[in-house]
Amino acid sequence: MQPYELTLTAAAEAVRTRRLSPVELVDSVLDRLGRVEPRLRAYVAVAEDDARRAAREAERDVARGHYRGPLHGIPMGLKDLIDVAGTATSASSRVRAGHRAEADSTVAARLAAAGAVLIGKTHTHEFAYGLTTPQTRNAWDQERVAGGSSGGSAVAVAAGAATFALGTDTGGSIRVPAALNGVVGLKPTYGLVPRHGVTSLSWSLDHVGPITRTVSDAALVLSALTGHDPRDPASLDTPAEDYRPAGGDDLTGVRVGVPRTYYVDHVAPDVAAAVRRAVDRLRDLGARPVEVDIPMGRYVRATQWGLMVPEATAYHERTLRAAPELYRTDVRVLLEAGELMSAGDYLRAQRSRTLMRREWARLLDEVDVVAAPTVPVTAVRAGQETVTWPDGTVEGVSDAYVRLSAPANITGFPSLTVPVGHDTAGLPVGMQLLGRPLGERTLLRVGHAYERSRPEPAPVSPPAALAS
Amino acid sequence: MQPYELTLTAAAEAVRTRRLSPVELVDSVLDRLGRVEPRLRAYVAVAEDDARRAAREAERDVARGHYRGPLHGIPMGLKDLIDVAGTATSASSRVRAGHRAEADSTVAARLAAAGAVLIGKTHTHEFAYGLTTPQTRNAWDQERVAGGSSGGSAVAVAAGAATFALGTDTGGSIRVPAALNGVVGLKPTYGLVPRHGVTSLSWSLDHVGPITRTVSDAALVLSALTGHDPRDPASLDTPAEDYRPAGGDDLTGVRVGVPRTYYVDHVAPDVAAAVRRAVDRLRDLGARPVEVDIPMGRYVRATQWGLMVPEATAYHERTLRAAPELYRTDVRVLLEAGELMSAGDYLRAQRSRTLMRREWARLLDEVDVVAAPTVPVTAVRAGQETVTWPDGTVEGVSDAYVRLSAPANITGFPSLTVPVGHDTAGLPVGMQLLGRPLGERTLLRVGHAYERSRPEPAPVSPPAALAS
Repeated sequence: MQPYELTLTAAAEAVRTRRLSPVELVDSVLDRLGRVEPRLRAYVAVAEDDARRAAREAERDVARGHYRGPLHGIPMGLKDLIDVAGTATSASSRVRAGHRAEADSTVAARLAAAGAVLIGKTHTHEFAYGLTTPQTRNAWDQERVAGGSSGGSAVAVAAGAATFALGTDTGGSIRVPAALNGVVGLKPTYGLVPRHGVTSLSWSLDHVGPITRTVSDAALVLSALTGHDPRDPASLDTPAEDYRPAGGDDLTGVRVGVPRTYYVDHVAPDVAAAVRRAVDRLRDLGARPVEVDIPMGRYVRATQWGLMVPEATAYHERTLRAAPELYRTDVRVLLEAGELMSAGDYLRAQRSRTLMRREWARLLDEVDVVAAPTVPVTAVRAGQETVTWPDGTVEGVSDAYVRLSAPANITGFPSLTVPVGHDTAGLPVGMQLLGRPLGERTLLRVGHAYERSRPEPAPVSPPAALAS
Repeated sequence: MQPYELTLTAAAEAVRTRRLSPVELVDSVLDRLGRVEPRLRAYVAVAEDDARRAAREAERDVARGHYRGPLHGIPMGLKDLIDVAGTATSASSRVRAGHRAEADSTVAARLAAAGAVLIGKTHTHEFAYGLTTPQTRNAWDQERVAGGSSGGSAVAVAAGAATFALGTDTGGSIRVPAALNGVVGLKPTYGLVPRHGVTSLSWSLDHVGPITRTVSDAALVLSALTGHDPRDPASLDTPAEDYRPAGGDDLTGVRVGVPRTYYVDHVAPDVAAAVRRAVDRLRDLGARPVEVDIPMGRYVRATQWGLMVPEATAYHERTLRAAPELYRTDVRVLLEAGELMSAGDYLRAQRSRTLMRREWARLLDEVDVVAAPTVPVTAVRAGQETVTWPDGTVEGVSDAYVRLSAPANITGFPSLTVPVGHDTAGLPVGMQLLGRPLGERTLLRVGHAYERSRPEPAPVSPPAALAS
């Protein structure tokens, strides 16, 4: 096994016990990156020299006994919405040409303090405003979309071009690409991870979180990210915590909500079957499946877009007036649509969110987690614009990918996606576990138990990603 | 001294020690009400029989040793936006003809549980959307406005037609009428008093709070109102507390911010002088006056109206379409204006609020309270539409009355108004003390110390209010 194939947990243990040097690990990841990047295009910019320098420094520190913890010397990718002092935050957009961040974002500063090594900035759908990340291709099939908007981060992790990465999630943008590339993605509780220095799409729906190969890996990264920061007005005043799942895989007493509405409509049979099998696995571990009804499903779409569209337009107001031609057409059209929305439309969405939050809280009194598909279809072909369902319904690709993710953005409740096998075309399927506010521990515990019960580990580097 | 003239604190002590029966107290207040109401019109509806019945019940309970605490047997008025089961919540509007509340609001239920006796529902500017309460007249001069929107509550308390009352405050609606009628008004921290069952004007700015004759009285009422209620989505998860000011009147170490901007522009000289004298009094008690600059003053108006107007319109959306003619013209025009506002306008106001909250928090790191005029002019003549300042500026009466109150609505920080004397026309002047989030104790402590240092107590019942 090559170092780039190691999970974060395994790599950290090898570094800590000095069986692996951060230099070897970073070299291996950079070498892998060099081989897959021409096909996948996960990165906007690779900081090769800086990464090798940081790796040497980490090697020295660890050798001298200054081990900082499990992220020390670990190569990571940061979605290119996340400020790193002295470098551009391109947002994968021409609008940001010549940009240079003055200071680190809170998350970049915390990861740097933990000793993580920045490999590069990963592609996003322009300004995170889309679900495909057209510059980047799926790690399992380069004819297919990466998913978005954190497409570069998910592909980099799936292909071994980063040991972990950060994404942002406003309508599924961590979970969708994680699911489509067969990796783990965690959208934490709203406000748990500070967003200071991270480019906003829609501030009442935006979240920052980890994309990793395993649930334990996600817990390690989350532990470095949390803790109050007053510079993000939504930041929760919670202390930093260690989220690593403790204890065994016995899930006795855990009530798993199995939706009989919303998450079952317009879902591909392969996807539904994979999630069903995963829930059976949870049951075998002791969990009790409980059928549940999902509240206010028919309001999800209007609420998500009703909040997101005007907030995004407000953020881009000046640039949109000054230089609309710099945006890609799909994004510009959405931003312009936001100018036409009335305050009443926005306020209706806000009120709907308040009710939805209350109803979901009630649902999560009855069960500990809800298990549901992350996305209703696996990765579609690049350029495909719609999905046609057996009943004849035609749905836009973005609408389909947002649909099952949006409830956790609207409510702010946490959601963890874990890979649960493949469809008949060999493409990864994701299951999301949705939980209570600040219920990350429960999600990580259930996800971790599931992961350890899998017959074989998820392959780290799909062969299709390799340049021939 | 007649029972209706007693402060809540004095009446409560007399009831507790059985020197005064709730029946005598309620009879005295109802009698007084009968004499002043023809001129002042503070009440929408008086529940005379129910009040006398409740008083007899309180009398029996106290006699049997079942004393419930300081509100037991005390006559109160509730602003007619506050639901009381089985009675109409008219909002002083024809729109609510035939209304009947199914259940008690949280505050009505809590006051009933504390043993308070409902005298009646008090007038509001229609749906709380205005600063004058045209149906009602000032308790000190019946040619002048009551102030609003909780005009009925303030006038009832000032005139002895209730021992205390509740109001609501979205842009000064507790503090403005309290100041104009020479009584105490407390707008608590946003979320501290649950609003379930209280008709909304603008949910991100609405607060419920007490109107009383003294600061100690306000503390007694507040103690009965606080405590989490999940049915108000903004309700803070804080425990119920006893807010009665403890300790002496020594204010040594308390830093009192004295604004050199914003609260000094376009303020009548009489008003400014009265507030200055009150600050001198605080200094004599040991407090340290510190000159401060008020942040973002020029954004207050746009932010307040930018939030309030569309939220109010959203609340009234259906009725406004179905029966616009039922609203009074001033309110209908404002509601219709809200339909024209864009989501972008609203979001700009939201973002401005976020910044303003941050800047005020910074200011209140430097000082413990800010002392400022509550309103820039005392009660204007009924029907007067504008105020003309010496520099020639003409300001709408509502704009003038909102101007100094709005910062505490926008930020959600608490504000307590206390009477600080009279202008040359003999009309009351109010000083507001602004504090940190959940800093009610400090405001009450400073206000209480000020109040006890006053040479003479504020008269309970201005003679002008009496029907001849």
